[in-house]
Amino acid sequence: MQATILTVGDEILIGQVTDTNATYMAAALSEEGITVVEHLSVADSRQGIMGGLDRALQQSDLVLMTGGLGPTKDDITKRVLADYFGGELRFHNPTWKRLIKLYQRYGREPNETHRAQCRLPTGAKILVNERGTAPGLWMEKEEQVVVSMPGVPYEMAYLMEHEVMRRLKRKNFDAELLRSVTLLTAGEGESTIAERVERIEDELPENMSLAYLPNLGTVRLRLSARGNDEALLQSQLDEYRNHLEGALGELVYGYGKDDLASVVGRALQARKQTLATAESCTGGTVAEMITAHPGASAHFIGGVVAYSNELKQSLLGVPAPVLLDHGAVSEATIIAMAEGACERLGSDYAIATSGIAGPGGGTADKPVGTIWIAVATPERTITKLLRSGKDRQRNITFTSLQALNLLRLNL
Amino acid sequence: MQATILTVGDEILIGQVTDTNATYMAAALSEEGITVVEHLSVADSRQGIMGGLDRALQQSDLVLMTGGLGPTKDDITKRVLADYFGGELRFHNPTWKRLIKLYQRYGREPNETHRAQCRLPTGAKILVNERGTAPGLWMEKEEQVVVSMPGVPYEMAYLMEHEVMRRLKRKNFDAELLRSVTLLTAGEGESTIAERVERIEDELPENMSLAYLPNLGTVRLRLSARGNDEALLQSQLDEYRNHLEGALGELVYGYGKDDLASVVGRALQARKQTLATAESCTGGTVAEMITAHPGASAHFIGGVVAYSNELKQSLLGVPAPVLLDHGAVSEATIIAMAEGACERLGSDYAIATSGIAGPGGGTADKPVGTIWIAVATPERTITKLLRSGKDRQRNITFTSLQALNLLRLNL
Repeated sequence: MQATILTVGDEILIGQVTDTNATYMAAALSEEGITVVEHLSVADSRQGIMGGLDRALQQSDLVLMTGGLGPTKDDITKRVLADYFGGELRFHNPTWKRLIKLYQRYGREPNETHRAQCRLPTGAKILVNERGTAPGLWMEKEEQVVVSMPGVPYEMAYLMEHEVMRRLKRKNFDAELLRSVTLLTAGEGESTIAERVERIEDELPENMSLAYLPNLGTVRLRLSARGNDEALLQSQLDEYRNHLEGALGELVYGYGKDDLASVVGRALQARKQTLATAESCTGGTVAEMITAHPGASAHFIGGVVAYSNELKQSLLGVPAPVLLDHGAVSEATIIAMAEGACERLGSDYAIATSGIAGPGGGTADKPVGTIWIAVATPERTITKLLRSGKDRQRNITFTSLQALNLLRLNL
Repeated sequence: MQATILTVGDEILIGQVTDTNATYMAAALSEEGITVVEHLSVADSRQGIMGGLDRALQQSDLVLMTGGLGPTKDDITKRVLADYFGGELRFHNPTWKRLIKLYQRYGREPNETHRAQCRLPTGAKILVNERGTAPGLWMEKEEQVVVSMPGVPYEMAYLMEHEVMRRLKRKNFDAELLRSVTLLTAGEGESTIAERVERIEDELPENMSLAYLPNLGTVRLRLSARGNDEALLQSQLDEYRNHLEGALGELVYGYGKDDLASVVGRALQARKQTLATAESCTGGTVAEMITAHPGASAHFIGGVVAYSNELKQSLLGVPAPVLLDHGAVSEATIIAMAEGACERLGSDYAIATSGIAGPGGGTADKPVGTIWIAVATPERTITKLLRSGKDRQRNITFTSLQALNLLRLNL
């Protein structure tokens, strides 16, 4: 089965929002071996949607759409769909009853814009959306399937999980399988990694491929295999994953959907040890990366965002003379921050960051991008000086990842 | 001028990475009044890229591409481009010299994979990429322009800013103008907002439109006007923006690229007052949102991520009996956290969050999604109980935005 993802919305075309729905839908389809041949984003217009549908149905059996089903006037997808499939919009009483019930919970009543949402294409199978007011639509014509979902990511995800993927699995029994494994690396760039795995890459069988996904000091390597024999694909992936791991050593920190924070978290949890953070220039991002994972409270006790020098002293115990003599961005300060976090907060390990994230605040001596990180362990404190660029957001993310990687290498 | 954005990469098609490059390029083009008619993402294959180029050049005069120019073997865009434009790949000495120089800075030499990167399509104008090893390519054929850039977001952004947009501005002198203003609202959902502005929307002139972009308790309203008379468009936008503001009142918190953190930050800075954070369930996200903005240190002194009860006591001074009697997720605790942050950290205002972000940790009494937020001001402390859903990441982001909005409304 081949699929096209078709997202509708001027907000995407003009770059006001990023199309995360396409990512979500593509990942869900790929996991089931359904090949996504294209993502298409088109305008909130009859012409845009029609043109997108024409293209999508020429090249695929399945089209997943989002956008243009909401209560507001810029939403026209369902009108176009009704026309495209030779139907019309008709008031759908079960959907209206559901809306009345939904609003009763909040002691309110649905309004006229909600009533308009209940006018749905005849011929469509209605997919109940438990997270919002606009239902999903499932339409079929000559063995081709078009599914339309609301553009709100949270609602789309609900429909994908509870309705769309279940129905597709029943349809998709003859698919060629696509299996892949992703190795996550940190510490070297794309070219160095390419050099280290060059020979392995040259020896890959025809049905396998290797892709590089670099991002801010981390590179993900996706190894894929296509075919019909599940066991063969799995053994091929195992074999070449082993080769890659051998060539890359400790650069590999995890697999698949892991990230540095989850890997470090699991390692700490396994030893029943705890972590605290003492952040200056990263402003809470290290803590945020750690606490994004369920169960973080088992190993993460908390942290301090010590943006001002006063808080570096009062909360972390950095001695005033250290700040005075060396400045907030210095090896002496970062050591005091990391060790102070362990002591004051009572953790086994601590991560500390202090630097000039930019765009302002640089000097000739310490230009923007000058950043110290440290990891305090029960035995010792390790520091590292980063020389990053001028982009604030990039510096914050890069520093946070480097700090987590420094902890990983010293656990 | 009409444009298509064409991104190349299997990693996008299988949903492993989100196509943020398309967002960036689309925003840059829209600002210059260039209409983006479609975003297309295609496979790292000759067929995928050719098919995408065919489609893009049928419907537009300009194609901006990213992806497939890197040093690794999955990159084939430039080979396809050479064929498409009837050229060939030839070793480009200036690019090689630049690479040698670049690597000298790090005391290293470019390797064989870099050498392959210097084989570039004949007929292409080479755009120097100061942030990486792969140059951009600018190709023209019968008044149509195809620009190809590396897929690394940071490198693409450099080329867009320093090369591509400058060249396009010189070409794009007869464009119809698109001007827009975006109102940012927080506190009500899409349908309520739609009801409140319904009459204004009905009265919009033909050349204007209103779009709704809802996300987690915030809705952005984009008001657009198209035409050739800059002054007229501006006065139309001003007029209808005023109407919208009148109908929406204090729901409107800002415009354009603002966010709640930047708006709150500016307000604090104007009064020379300071803010601290005391976060539990949001794990540093409020601090991260605040410090994402340059100059945050002027009003943000820092914060505490008090994940454990011990740190709520030791760093924020929450009394042990309060935690014992009411629990960490309670109005009594959230008041003590907010007021403790002001006192212990020494700020004028404080934001506090404590709740059950999920997926675990819920009870019958306090199910997942039960979250208290508080804002301490010099005069009083305001609390709010949120009843959110079960999705951890959504709860964290939603809570952080609600807390910033609560501060905004009480400044």
